Amino acid sequence: MGIASQVETMRWTGDALELIDQRALPFKVDYPRFTTAAQVADAIRDMVVRGAPAIGCAAAFGVALEAIALRDATSEDFAAGMETGMSALRASRPTAVNLGWAVDRMATVWKHVENESPAAIAGRLVAEATSIFDEDVAANRAIGSFGAALIENDACILTHCNAGALATAGHGTALGVVRSAFQSGKAISVVAPETRPYFQGARLTAWELQREGIPVTVIVDGAAGFLMSQGDVDVVIVGADRIALNGDAANKIGTYGLAVVAARHGIPFYVAAPLSTFDRSLATGKGIPIEQREGGEIRGYRGIEWTPRDVLIANPVFDVTPAELITAIITERGVIRAPYNPAIARLLKN
Amino acid sequence: MGIASQVETMRWTGDALELIDQRALPFKVDYPRFTTAAQVADAIRDMVVRGAPAIGCAAAFGVALEAIALRDATSEDFAAGMETGMSALRASRPTAVNLGWAVDRMATVWKHVENESPAAIAGRLVAEATSIFDEDVAANRAIGSFGAALIENDACILTHCNAGALATAGHGTALGVVRSAFQSGKAISVVAPETRPYFQGARLTAWELQREGIPVTVIVDGAAGFLMSQGDVDVVIVGADRIALNGDAANKIGTYGLAVVAARHGIPFYVAAPLSTFDRSLATGKGIPIEQREGGEIRGYRGIEWTPRDVLIANPVFDVTPAELITAIITERGVIRAPYNPAIARLLKN
Repeated sequence: MGIASQVETMRWTGDALELIDQRALPFKVDYPRFTTAAQVADAIRDMVVRGAPAIGCAAAFGVALEAIALRDATSEDFAAGMETGMSALRASRPTAVNLGWAVDRMATVWKHVENESPAAIAGRLVAEATSIFDEDVAANRAIGSFGAALIENDACILTHCNAGALATAGHGTALGVVRSAFQSGKAISVVAPETRPYFQGARLTAWELQREGIPVTVIVDGAAGFLMSQGDVDVVIVGADRIALNGDAANKIGTYGLAVVAARHGIPFYVAAPLSTFDRSLATGKGIPIEQREGGEIRGYRGIEWTPRDVLIANPVFDVTPAELITAIITERGVIRAPYNPAIARLLKN
Repeated sequence: MGIASQVETMRWTGDALELIDQRALPFKVDYPRFTTAAQVADAIRDMVVRGAPAIGCAAAFGVALEAIALRDATSEDFAAGMETGMSALRASRPTAVNLGWAVDRMATVWKHVENESPAAIAGRLVAEATSIFDEDVAANRAIGSFGAALIENDACILTHCNAGALATAGHGTALGVVRSAFQSGKAISVVAPETRPYFQGARLTAWELQREGIPVTVIVDGAAGFLMSQGDVDVVIVGADRIALNGDAANKIGTYGLAVVAARHGIPFYVAAPLSTFDRSLATGKGIPIEQREGGEIRGYRGIEWTPRDVLIANPVFDVTPAELITAIITERGVIRAPYNPAIARLLKN
């Protein structure tokens, strides 16, 4: 598993997964260590790691870690422990489909070799998790390359949340397009809405881009519409947490509003996501579960509060952008456009 | 000057203006005291007081305070000091037209009586500022009454920022409609986007409504579109900082995006504002100056930061909603609808 980009989202040590603590960024770079599926599930739920492809990779390593932890168990205890661990991982966050996709893929490998020794199974699962990780980096590089062709020189790109190296195994999806365009010599700049409640734009996207010298300006989420109305944004590119078979795409709360305003101004609105983000079981976005997180994320930050106590808070953290507002979806197998149903069907069949 | 509502935005003591410090709300209720125009100008710039009608009233008292402070000056020094004070007030914030409107009105009164003694002039100016204040309360009660007729029982009203008692002399504009509807016995509820960067929704609107038992739920700004897409919002009502003669309306950053999404879902989008918010010199919203504030308001809050140092910040704090997205404008003289040019011309002629 190679170095994916300048920012390392996770590191596999052979017997542990180290995750960059995304809650502590941008001011502290720390890699806590995880050695069981339950610990990784907690890390996903608590947002030590976030971003749909990244939580898929972390969950895959979580399954492998569980097998390692159960290496000396009886076959029965091994199977029971694995099921418990996989359930915890699946339940850790509801919206990103990559999580279930990765756990399913690990479960399939396990079932293929379940008559082997726990130690042998563990070895196979580590290899599979490493493949998932490496494939994600490769997918993002392909997404970056396909997407960069859509970006004109001097473009101002508005993104939302963080669909960067930190949201993936490396390179990023939306920021993979930004990176690839920048690395190809295009003079681009990025506008990053801060992305409440978790500030992934201000804390993570700004930090990633600043480290690499890519010009970035942080705004409040509410200012995106104003910038679009002023002609200051040439293109919007976001990631996705789950894409239905008709192209409807769930992404960080606020994405839908950006898409509506972009459409009003004729600004191309692109979704960049690997095939692991497509939900083969969902006809439309109406079926996508929207995670509601606790109100403390909105009430304040790090002990400083600004909301009166006892006031009701609603904290849905994703929304769904209907396919009709999406100019194109950039995948590792190319760029697809409406009508999305046949395009996505072809993509997933290959 | 009577008690305008349960929240007192400002108090006139006879020789000083006390302003509730809106930066300290909701956790600290404090009324610092101001005795010169320059001090009031600083309070407006630093957002001790904010909200277009409230800063108009505060500026009027600022002019009166300057006259009181100069009571014993020569006529020449009095005139020079008054001009300096009024210039400082006019320059304190650029977008709200009520500020210039109030200072103009005070200047007109002064010019009418400029041959009287400074003490007599001061008396006239205190009376005029008190009238501006009282008229604003009366205007808001009328706005509330006209607006309440537009609100159905059980309506969920989304507002933005704080166009409440705290933004005015009392009762509020958008929240004046909410209050009047609630007081008339309608079962309403309010959704308050927190309103970055200054959290006026979370800090001020939530606090005002909670004190009066009006149900309110705080969300992040990015969640408003999602709630509208889910059918959870029946009507949007916002205030305004400046309205052009064609109905284009400047309001807190983020308002424009709300209007675009509301239009997509057929949700009525109302602007509630007194006549003092109309700019008789501006044909369209393109001429409205948009204040850019310093980046520190976005970087963090009260010493806690979340944005990497040295990252560029853009902080426009207002945007302009084109008249075509505004279902109606609720004024103290009634509710007007498109075509706005003739409707506004009639309104301002009376």
